[in-house]
Amino acid sequence: MSDTRDIELLIDLMARLPGLGPRSARRAVLHLIKKRGQVLLPLADAMHRVGTSARECLNCGNISTRDICPICDSEKRGNGQICVVEDVADLWAMERSGVFQGRYHVLGGTLSALDAVGPEDLRIPRLIDRIATENVTEVILALGATVDGQTTAHYIADRLPGITVTSLAQGVPVGGELDYLDDGTITAALRARRAL
Amino acid sequence: MSDTRDIELLIDLMARLPGLGPRSARRAVLHLIKKRGQVLLPLADAMHRVGTSARECLNCGNISTRDICPICDSEKRGNGQICVVEDVADLWAMERSGVFQGRYHVLGGTLSALDAVGPEDLRIPRLIDRIATENVTEVILALGATVDGQTTAHYIADRLPGITVTSLAQGVPVGGELDYLDDGTITAALRARRAL
Repeated sequence: MSDTRDIELLIDLMARLPGLGPRSARRAVLHLIKKRGQVLLPLADAMHRVGTSARECLNCGNISTRDICPICDSEKRGNGQICVVEDVADLWAMERSGVFQGRYHVLGGTLSALDAVGPEDLRIPRLIDRIATENVTEVILALGATVDGQTTAHYIADRLPGITVTSLAQGVPVGGELDYLDDGTITAALRARRAL
Repeated sequence: MSDTRDIELLIDLMARLPGLGPRSARRAVLHLIKKRGQVLLPLADAMHRVGTSARECLNCGNISTRDICPICDSEKRGNGQICVVEDVADLWAMERSGVFQGRYHVLGGTLSALDAVGPEDLRIPRLIDRIATENVTEVILALGATVDGQTTAHYIADRLPGITVTSLAQGVPVGGELDYLDDGTITAALRARRAL
């Protein structure tokens, strides 16, 4: 069936995406073929454009189509705050909340003894450079509440003497019910309780 | 952020695929950008090729890159059996089992009073034409065991006098445990019991 080779290749490639397996890749490809004009060809074009133009910001590691991303390039965002995140997905999550007005620094992962990820494998030296050259007043560590995330947070905090280093609060998520929360979260929320 | 417009457009388009929502589309796009050479650009090319070449077989409704699909075109598959399926995904599922050696007919859906799908909306007239012109000995109805699927099966069977019309057996799936089966399947399996 050499004439269906392209379709089979497309299914194989789609099945490599996170969240899709062989079955959902087949469903997605059939959907794409049925919606050729509205979805398939625009998607192919968008992928081609992103594939040729997307790059990591030389300053912070964010992804955009320029060497310096719009956030690093914006005067408005230069308020002296740098929010340190693990991954671009975390940066996007922060941006969706719309509440942070400073700049970011994307580490590209966390320190991990198990996976042999050291400081030189992450964008940590570049962070220390930025603090020396940009007018930074506060470093906000927005790393995951995991062992590796917290190890990374402490490692970074130790290397930034003389700078205010903060981290995101831990506690009950908005809309969360106590009954469904784990013990660690309840303990953290109780310890960080505030006067009403 | 006009420079991230292409990336946002790509996320929007990916989120329209079945099985992906906004969150998994963002994850998939970040994965694609990281694996630009191995996945993103090959995927864009494969989509473009499929988008410009994929078409429905004029005879059976299968999808390939030719006007007549490889199965309809193959002499070997002309054994007089036509397997009627709802959708190309069902044809692919039959082909994966590798057990059917005849040709197919893809209806493109099922009759449905609720969704106002009548016989002229499906590929039923073309099926009746094929039976008149091809040397058909048996029509195998491989339609879903749903109300609409069974209605469609009976409608087709009524319009094919003088032809052997069969349908897939209903019963316990291979590897299935009785405890987890619904009453309807157990009833069908008991009624169609066979001597060992």
